[in-house]
Amino acid sequence: MTSLRFVFLFLLISFSTAAQKDYKLWLQYNTVADSTAASEYKNNLKGIAVLGNSETIKIAEKELKTGFADMLGSIPEIRKDVKGENNLIVGSQMNLSSEIKTELQADLNKINTEGFVIKAILLKNKKQIVITGKNDIAVLYGVFHFLRILQTNKSVKDLNIADSPKTNIRILNHWDNLDRTVERGYAGFSLWNWQKLPDFIDQRYIDYARANASIGINGTVLTNVNANALILTPQYLEKVEALANVFRPYGIKVYLTARFSAPIEIGNLKTADPKDPEVINWWKNKSAEIYKRIPDFGGFLVKANSEGQPGPQNYGRDHVDGANMLADAVAPFGGVIMWRAFVYSEHDANDRAKQAYAEFQPYDGKFKENVMVQVKNGAIDFQPREPFHPLFGAMPKTPLMMEFQITQEYLGFSAHLVFLPKLFQEVLESDTFQKGKGSTVAKVVDGTLYKNKLTGTAGVANIGNDLNWTGHPFAQANWYGFGRLAWNPYLDSEVIAEEWLRSTFSNNENFIKPVKNIMIESREAVVNYMTPLGLHHIMDTGHHYGPGPWVSNLSRPEWNPTYYHKADKNGIGFDRSKSGTDAVWQYAPEAAKLFDNVETCPEKELLWFHHLSWDYKLKNGQTLWNGLALKYQQGVDQVRKMQDVWNKTENYIDSERFNEVKMLLEIQHKEAKWWRDACLLYFQQFSGKALPDGVEKPTQTLEYFKSLKFPFAPGNG
Amino acid sequence: MTSLRFVFLFLLISFSTAAQKDYKLWLQYNTVADSTAASEYKNNLKGIAVLGNSETIKIAEKELKTGFADMLGSIPEIRKDVKGENNLIVGSQMNLSSEIKTELQADLNKINTEGFVIKAILLKNKKQIVITGKNDIAVLYGVFHFLRILQTNKSVKDLNIADSPKTNIRILNHWDNLDRTVERGYAGFSLWNWQKLPDFIDQRYIDYARANASIGINGTVLTNVNANALILTPQYLEKVEALANVFRPYGIKVYLTARFSAPIEIGNLKTADPKDPEVINWWKNKSAEIYKRIPDFGGFLVKANSEGQPGPQNYGRDHVDGANMLADAVAPFGGVIMWRAFVYSEHDANDRAKQAYAEFQPYDGKFKENVMVQVKNGAIDFQPREPFHPLFGAMPKTPLMMEFQITQEYLGFSAHLVFLPKLFQEVLESDTFQKGKGSTVAKVVDGTLYKNKLTGTAGVANIGNDLNWTGHPFAQANWYGFGRLAWNPYLDSEVIAEEWLRSTFSNNENFIKPVKNIMIESREAVVNYMTPLGLHHIMDTGHHYGPGPWVSNLSRPEWNPTYYHKADKNGIGFDRSKSGTDAVWQYAPEAAKLFDNVETCPEKELLWFHHLSWDYKLKNGQTLWNGLALKYQQGVDQVRKMQDVWNKTENYIDSERFNEVKMLLEIQHKEAKWWRDACLLYFQQFSGKALPDGVEKPTQTLEYFKSLKFPFAPGNG
Repeated sequence: MTSLRFVFLFLLISFSTAAQKDYKLWLQYNTVADSTAASEYKNNLKGIAVLGNSETIKIAEKELKTGFADMLGSIPEIRKDVKGENNLIVGSQMNLSSEIKTELQADLNKINTEGFVIKAILLKNKKQIVITGKNDIAVLYGVFHFLRILQTNKSVKDLNIADSPKTNIRILNHWDNLDRTVERGYAGFSLWNWQKLPDFIDQRYIDYARANASIGINGTVLTNVNANALILTPQYLEKVEALANVFRPYGIKVYLTARFSAPIEIGNLKTADPKDPEVINWWKNKSAEIYKRIPDFGGFLVKANSEGQPGPQNYGRDHVDGANMLADAVAPFGGVIMWRAFVYSEHDANDRAKQAYAEFQPYDGKFKENVMVQVKNGAIDFQPREPFHPLFGAMPKTPLMMEFQITQEYLGFSAHLVFLPKLFQEVLESDTFQKGKGSTVAKVVDGTLYKNKLTGTAGVANIGNDLNWTGHPFAQANWYGFGRLAWNPYLDSEVIAEEWLRSTFSNNENFIKPVKNIMIESREAVVNYMTPLGLHHIMDTGHHYGPGPWVSNLSRPEWNPTYYHKADKNGIGFDRSKSGTDAVWQYAPEAAKLFDNVETCPEKELLWFHHLSWDYKLKNGQTLWNGLALKYQQGVDQVRKMQDVWNKTENYIDSERFNEVKMLLEIQHKEAKWWRDACLLYFQQFSGKALPDGVEKPTQTLEYFKSLKFPFAPGNG
Repeated sequence: MTSLRFVFLFLLISFSTAAQKDYKLWLQYNTVADSTAASEYKNNLKGIAVLGNSETIKIAEKELKTGFADMLGSIPEIRKDVKGENNLIVGSQMNLSSEIKTELQADLNKINTEGFVIKAILLKNKKQIVITGKNDIAVLYGVFHFLRILQTNKSVKDLNIADSPKTNIRILNHWDNLDRTVERGYAGFSLWNWQKLPDFIDQRYIDYARANASIGINGTVLTNVNANALILTPQYLEKVEALANVFRPYGIKVYLTARFSAPIEIGNLKTADPKDPEVINWWKNKSAEIYKRIPDFGGFLVKANSEGQPGPQNYGRDHVDGANMLADAVAPFGGVIMWRAFVYSEHDANDRAKQAYAEFQPYDGKFKENVMVQVKNGAIDFQPREPFHPLFGAMPKTPLMMEFQITQEYLGFSAHLVFLPKLFQEVLESDTFQKGKGSTVAKVVDGTLYKNKLTGTAGVANIGNDLNWTGHPFAQANWYGFGRLAWNPYLDSEVIAEEWLRSTFSNNENFIKPVKNIMIESREAVVNYMTPLGLHHIMDTGHHYGPGPWVSNLSRPEWNPTYYHKADKNGIGFDRSKSGTDAVWQYAPEAAKLFDNVETCPEKELLWFHHLSWDYKLKNGQTLWNGLALKYQQGVDQVRKMQDVWNKTENYIDSERFNEVKMLLEIQHKEAKWWRDACLLYFQQFSGKALPDGVEKPTQTLEYFKSLKFPFAPGNG
C-alpha cells in the first residue's frame, strides 16, 4: 500500500513540475539516477556542519538542503558543529576550527578573496569534506560548485579543489529601460518591476540572484547604456536600494548607467561639462547620495558620445575628461567607472571598424585607476563572427573590460539555438601578439599580460521575464557559459556545454553526447547561414531581424549593409588590408601581417579584411561564389542535422522542453533558409553566376524577401 | 524505509513547487486533507470511463488524471467503457449508452448546448456518477465543475446537478498591443508573443485556455480596442490562426478588434466609408479570408469614434451604418459584431455621463441581428463605484453586452486587494425598473427581460505574463469571479470568494472565514479611500495612478477631475438631478425619481447625482465634510484590518504567497493613506474646515502630493 502511494506521489511530482523545469535553469537538481554515485554521496555525506550565521551562510545551507532533497531524496543531519565522520563542513576560514585551518592553510594560500577550497581531509582520522573560503560569499561559490559535482554525477571521494575567479568584476549589463522594455531583449520584458519596487520583492529577484551566484557572477548593471537620468533620482534610487538589498547576500553588487547629461536633466544645471565645478560637485553629491543608500554600490557604466548619447565631447572635452570626472566622484567609496569604447562618429568618414581604436588607444595611461574601458569583443558590433577587437592588448596601462553580448541581437534572437561560449572562447583564445606570441585576449582580460589590478568581463544579458528567463531553453546555456567564462576565461566551451547539459537536462550519455555536439557546432552553423567567410552587418535595419544585404538608404553610411559587404560585379568584401582602409595596422605586426595577406588571412575572416573577385579560388579549390553559396547551404544543413539529433532525445527529457526546442529548431531551420535564399539571390545579382550543385533552389524571389517588414520585432529600443 | 522515502519525497515536492503555486491559479488541486472527504471520493470513484476521442475529451481525461493524482494521490483506472460500480462516466450525450441516456433524459432536457449534467445514478443497481452534456465542450465544463467539488471538499454521494451558462458569449477583452504592451495592464506584458508565433506555441497559451475553460469563458478578443490594422494582415492572421487552434479544444473562440480605417491603412483604399461599395467589399473579403483560416472565428469588437479612434462618423455615417456593414461581412460565417457604446465627444458640451445614452438609445431596433452593443457597467469609466449605465434596460430590441473591467485601472493597479465580483454583483443586481420593478441589469444581460437571443458579458482582462498571471495573487480571484458571473450573473460574490479561496489556498475554515470577509469588504474599502459618497474620476492624469483631484488643465474639460467633483466653497458633487444636467432622466422614472431626490438617493452615490454644501447633513447626522473625511479614514482603517487578518494566515498557506500578499497590503495601506491625505488636503481648501476627530493628520503637504510624477507608470497606452 505504501509503495503504491509512492508510485502515485511520483506521478504527482511529474504533473506539478512539468511546467516549471524551464524556470529552474541549470539548478534542476534532478534525482541522481546513477545508483553507484548516489550511494557514494550518501555514504560520504552523512551530516552537514554549517559554520556561521550570515544571510549568505543561511542561503548556502538552504541550497544544500534543496540540492540534497531533490538529488538524493533526503537531507543529511544539519548541525552547527562537527560530529563524527563523513561530514560536509561548510564555513569561511574564520569560522573553521584551528585544526581544520591548519590542515587547509596551503590551500587557502592559493585562493584569492573570492576563491574557494573543496577538499576531502582526514581529521583525527575521520574523513570529512570541507568547503571554505576567505569569506561567506566565497563559501557560497564553493557550495554551488560542490552541488554541481553532484549534479554532474562526479565522485566526491578525493575532492581537492582550490579555485578562484580570474577577474574581479563578472557582470551582467541589462539594457533594460524604465518602461520595462529591453533593448535587444528577446525573452519578454525587464525583470525589474519599478512600479512595485521598493515595497514588493518579486521572488524572481531572489531567484535571479541565486542563479547568478551559482555561476560566480558578482555584479549587475540594472539599466540600459542608452540611459535615462531618472534612475538617479531619489524616487528610483529607493527602488535600486531594495534590489541591492536582495542581491547583497548573494555577493552581487548593483551598478547603474550614468547618463552624462543627468546634471542638466535632473540636476537643474545649465551644463554637463565635466570640467565645470558645479557639474563635478553634482556628481560627487549624487555619488555620496547613492552610497549612503547602497554602501557597496559598484559604480557606473557609461555610453558617451556614441550613437546620439550625450558625453564630454558635447563640451569640447574628451572621454578621459568625462571618465575621470566620474571616477573621482565614486573613488572615495570604492566605486569604479566602466567607460565604453563603443564609439563611431557620423563626422568620421573612416572605416567604422577603425574608429574606436583610433579614438581610445591614444588615451592609454590617462585614465584614473578606478576606470575600466569596456570594449566589445569585435570592432563592429556583436556579429556572428568578428576578429578580436584591436584595442585588446593595445592599451597596456588601461584595464580593458571585455563586453560580450549574451542576448542574440544578431544571432537569431531567442529562436535560434546558438551556443555562444564557443564564440566567446574563440575571441578569448585569439592571439593579439601585442607582447609577443601567446598574448591572448584572455590574458588581457584577466590582467596577467600587463599586470592590471582591475579586471572584468561584462555580458549584455539575455534575461527577461519569460517563464524560462531567456526565451530559448538553450539560451540559458549562454547565460551560464558567460558566467563560467567570466570566472575563468580559459575554460573550454565543450566542458561548459557538458556541465550545463548535465545540470539542466540529464546525465544520460545517450543524450549528452549528441546534444553536446550540436551545441558546439551551432555557432558555426549560424555563421554559415548568416555571414560566412567574414561577411558582417548584412542584417535588416533597426530590429536587426533577418537578412537585409540590400539596405543602402540609411542616413549614416556605416549603418548600411552595403557599406560592409561592398558587393559589385567585381567581387565582394571589405578591403581593410594595406590596399584598403588599412585597418590591419591597428593590430600588432604579427597579427596585421596575417590578416593583411590574403594567403594567410583565415578564411573564416576573409571578407572582413579583403574584397575579392567572385572567381577567387578558396583553399578547397572552390570559387568564392561557389564557396559562399555552399557555406550558406551548409548552415542550413547543419540546422537540419541539429533537428535530427534533437528529435531523438524525446525519451531522455521532459516533453515540455523537448517540444519547445523542437518548435524553435523548426523556426531556426525556416530562418536559416530565409537567410540563405535572401543573401544568395541578392549577391547573385552581382556575381551573375548560377548556384552551384548542392545548393537548394530558393523558395521565394528576392523581391519577396525585400518586401518583408517587421514593425513590432522585439528589442528595437 | 519506504515510509522514510515517502517523507523525503514530500519534502522534495514542497521545495520544487513552492515558487510555482502562483502560476497554478485556482487549479492547485491541493491534497484533500479532510480524510472523510478523501475516503468518500476514493470509495465512490474507483474507475473512470471516458467516452469519446476528441481533443476536448482527451483534455478532460488529462484534467481528471491531474486532479486525482494531486488531490487524492492516486488515479482510478481509466477505461473506454463502464465496468463494475462506482465509476465516473464522462462523455457527451451521443457517446452515452442508450440506457444511461434514458436515465438522464429529463436532465438533458434542462440544459442548453453548453450546459452539463453531473448526476449520481443507479445503473443495473450499480452506483455510477455521470458527467455529460450535449457536446464535448459541455462535458469539459462538467469535468471542471466536478473537480471544483473535490477541491472544495464537498460530497459527491448524491450529486444531481444540471447547470447551463446563462449567456452565450463569455469573453475576455485583452487590451494588448502588437508590441506586447498592454493598455491598462498591470501584470507584466502581453501573453501573445507575436514574434514567435505561429511556429512557437508557448505553454502559457495552453494553460491560459485551460484556466478559462475551467470557469466557462468561451471567447477572447486578442487585441486592444484601440486597434492596429496590421492584425488583419496575412502576416498576423497566420499567428492568430495558431492561437485559435490552441484554444479550440478548450471551447474558446478567438475574436479580433477591427480598426475602422483598416481598408485605408492595409487595403490601399481611399476611404473607410461604410457605405462605399469598395469598403463593403473589402470587409467581406477580409472576413472570408479570416474564416478560411479560422472557421469558428468569433467576430469583431469595435471601438469607433471614441477617444480619437476612427469610425463611421468620419464619413458622415453613424454607428448603425458602421456596425451593420461589418455585421453583413461576418454574418455568412456566423460571426458577431460587438460594437462599443463607450463614446463621448469633444464637440459635445453635455455632461459626459449622458452622451452614450443620448447617442445610442435612439438606435434601438436598427442594428442587424448579429450586432451586440457593448456597454460599460457605468456611464463614465470603470470607477470604484458608479451607478449602473442608463442604457441597460433602455434598448429592448438590442442585445446589450456587459463590459466589466477586470484589470484595476482605477482601483490600485495590481497592488491593491480588491475583490471585484462584489462590484460586478452590485451592478448586476441593480434594478433598472425599465419593465417594472425587478428589471435588474442581470436580466438585461442574460436576455430574459426582453427575450434577446444573443447575450454576453465581456471583461477587460487583468492577465499578463507575470509569473502569477495577474500581478496580485488576489487579482486571480477577479479573473475567476468574472468567469463565474459571466456564466451565471445571479451568483453571489460571497459564494465565488469561498470557492476561489478553497481552490486556490486551503479548505481550512480558520483561513477561509476571515479571508473571505476581507475579500468581501475590500471593494468598499477602495471606494472609501479613493472615491467615497459618489465621488468619481479624481485620479491623476494619463496613467490614472494615485489621486489627482486638482487636475484642471487638460485640453478636454471632461478629462479633468475638477469637472467631476466640482468642489468649491459652496460644496462638492456633480449635480445630475433635474436642477443640474438632468442625467437622471435617462433612467426609468422609478430610478430617476430615486436618484433625483437627495433624500432617496443612496448615499453611496450622493455626489454622483448632487452638488451639496459642506454642511449638508448625512443620514448619520455628520456634516458632508466630516462624513467625507471619516469615509476616507475608514478606507484606510479597513486596509489595516485586512493586514491584521492576513498576518494571521501564515500557518495555513505557503510562505511565498503569504509574503507576496503581505508586501502588497503594505503598498495598499501606504497608497490608501496617500489617497486620503491628498484628497482631504485638496478638498479642505474649499471646505475651510478642520479634519474631524478620528481622522489622522496628513503625513505630507498638498504641494508634495501635487508634485509627484510617475512617468513610467505601467499600462498608460
